[in-house]
Amino acid sequence: MNRNENKIEGSVFLSEDKNSVCIIDQTLLPLEEKIISLKTPKEIYDAIYYLKVRGAPAIGICAGYGMYVLAKQITTEPFIEEFEKTGEYLNSSRPTAVNLSFAVNRMIRVAKGNETLPKDALLEKLCLEAKQIHAEDIEMCRSIAEYGLELIKDGDTILTHCNAGPLATSKYGTGLGTFFLAKEKGIELKAYCDETRPLLQGARLTVYELQNAGIDCTLVCDNMAASLMKQGKINACFVGCDRVALNGDAANKIGTLGVAVLAKHYGVPFYVFCPSSTVDKNCKTGDDIVIEEREKSEIFEMFYEKPVARENTKCYNPAFDVTDHELITAIVTEKGIWRGDESFETFLRRKNIID
Amino acid sequence: MNRNENKIEGSVFLSEDKNSVCIIDQTLLPLEEKIISLKTPKEIYDAIYYLKVRGAPAIGICAGYGMYVLAKQITTEPFIEEFEKTGEYLNSSRPTAVNLSFAVNRMIRVAKGNETLPKDALLEKLCLEAKQIHAEDIEMCRSIAEYGLELIKDGDTILTHCNAGPLATSKYGTGLGTFFLAKEKGIELKAYCDETRPLLQGARLTVYELQNAGIDCTLVCDNMAASLMKQGKINACFVGCDRVALNGDAANKIGTLGVAVLAKHYGVPFYVFCPSSTVDKNCKTGDDIVIEEREKSEIFEMFYEKPVARENTKCYNPAFDVTDHELITAIVTEKGIWRGDESFETFLRRKNIID
Repeated sequence: MNRNENKIEGSVFLSEDKNSVCIIDQTLLPLEEKIISLKTPKEIYDAIYYLKVRGAPAIGICAGYGMYVLAKQITTEPFIEEFEKTGEYLNSSRPTAVNLSFAVNRMIRVAKGNETLPKDALLEKLCLEAKQIHAEDIEMCRSIAEYGLELIKDGDTILTHCNAGPLATSKYGTGLGTFFLAKEKGIELKAYCDETRPLLQGARLTVYELQNAGIDCTLVCDNMAASLMKQGKINACFVGCDRVALNGDAANKIGTLGVAVLAKHYGVPFYVFCPSSTVDKNCKTGDDIVIEEREKSEIFEMFYEKPVARENTKCYNPAFDVTDHELITAIVTEKGIWRGDESFETFLRRKNIID
Repeated sequence: MNRNENKIEGSVFLSEDKNSVCIIDQTLLPLEEKIISLKTPKEIYDAIYYLKVRGAPAIGICAGYGMYVLAKQITTEPFIEEFEKTGEYLNSSRPTAVNLSFAVNRMIRVAKGNETLPKDALLEKLCLEAKQIHAEDIEMCRSIAEYGLELIKDGDTILTHCNAGPLATSKYGTGLGTFFLAKEKGIELKAYCDETRPLLQGARLTVYELQNAGIDCTLVCDNMAASLMKQGKINACFVGCDRVALNGDAANKIGTLGVAVLAKHYGVPFYVFCPSSTVDKNCKTGDDIVIEEREKSEIFEMFYEKPVARENTKCYNPAFDVTDHELITAIVTEKGIWRGDESFETFLRRKNIID
């Protein structure tokens, strides 16, 4: 299985025999690029829970292909009941990333709309839908990257937090897409990359992706961002998002809120890159967003040779925080840029992102 | 050599035979409490450089005893010339911690003032001076902790950054002293402790010290502080400092500035605990403070089982940042609390900390 031969875009794809969803195991990067194949509900659940596949859009693509692969294995009747149960199970793997439930629900809607078809024909519809989710993501990323170019100028230095590149999405990525597109167009951008504790997605993935593209990047610890901004070294901050409320409050990897507060203090523009699929119509404000709390071992053990605190140490390990829309300079979607001169909800309606 | 038997306060003491300075190797904590003995200039330099002894006051105490131990080994004439060279060498181990040069210069001053004495008598003077530096620190810590009690109330939850406890000083510590004194007086404080990347002094040392004292503490990654403050979980921030300018700008462990900006944004009081020996009369503002930049391996290798980025990754690793006095609610010294209602320099003069 070779990603390049199959012209795969991003870190998730369907196997040639269509019996498994394949992902690059992101927990092994940057030292090893290993593709693993997921067949069972538990394998897919665990891959999402343990962040082997991560990034809201990539999780959505994985859930789409995953639901298709699992649909093929359902032999009990009624099919739709079992399919919905499978969807609920996958949905519970990560509560904050909206693309997960978005993709799962799309697959269930297609199944329900084609319930009367013979199984083979129904599966064909599901396969097309999963591929459509993937294809839409590629197009979305390109469009977001194009809009991102409006926000930068040649020579700018951008601070990134976590990872919103091709690994987290499909081609280009969201938050990082502008870097790659700028490079193609001969526009030079530099990056400082927050390492992004506890799981170091910035160090392991963002730096890896930017290096691969030959983009000048410097790794820093999360707590160095204030010092960089004070020194005037940062022209803008680029982050992705995992769930965005109708008022523009944006949940993203823990630490994003802190970067936004610092950016506000130092007058640095703070940009959120947001596929419209990441907007959650059911959340009026950030207060409605459920924040996933993860195991404490991630803080004091993971990636470490030895524990950094005693076994009985209490840890607080929220995976995300919510950045208030007042702290956000602009939200970049594939349908245009919201710059705060109207409510985010009005913008969403005007762009037909919501009804 | 047993710290308790000798009623040692803090992490630094003189060996019984007075031929070496002994320290708890702080790089091995919290998993191993090992006392190492330093005899040569290089051993003392390395212990400071590699943070086996760390915390501005503890470095000062170590430098005091260190200069005495090294004075005994000097056989060339003129003694004072060699002694000054030794001082310069130790001073170069960490440029930002003012207590290092403060202690070294005190020892040199005593040597110069007693140059005509026989060597034994001179050494006796140096030994007394080193012990005096240590004794003053113990008294200073107690006094700072007492003043700190004025800033808290029963049940408060305090955010800490890095480590300013007994390990970093002598008994009580500066930034943590108030916790221990409050505990003795039956006042309950809780702590959230920033892990403090890259070297994790918060996770390894602050949590360890608070746990030892039976104080309720929870470990978080540095980038979680904003989320805690937004949730209203933090009543105040307590930090130490490594060098403070005459206008109150305070250099402390990297990440302190970010905490201060967040605290300002969320209306949380931000307190700097500052022995008067940490004030640098030669620095008018924070701009005059030299910030040490350390090896990149600390970011992408130290404490890790495997590197988190490729070998050729560029890293930026400043050890400190400078928090502007406008972001500081109060500076707590052993001679009283500066609350910003007069210039810091006026306060220092009024308290006879400077002439």
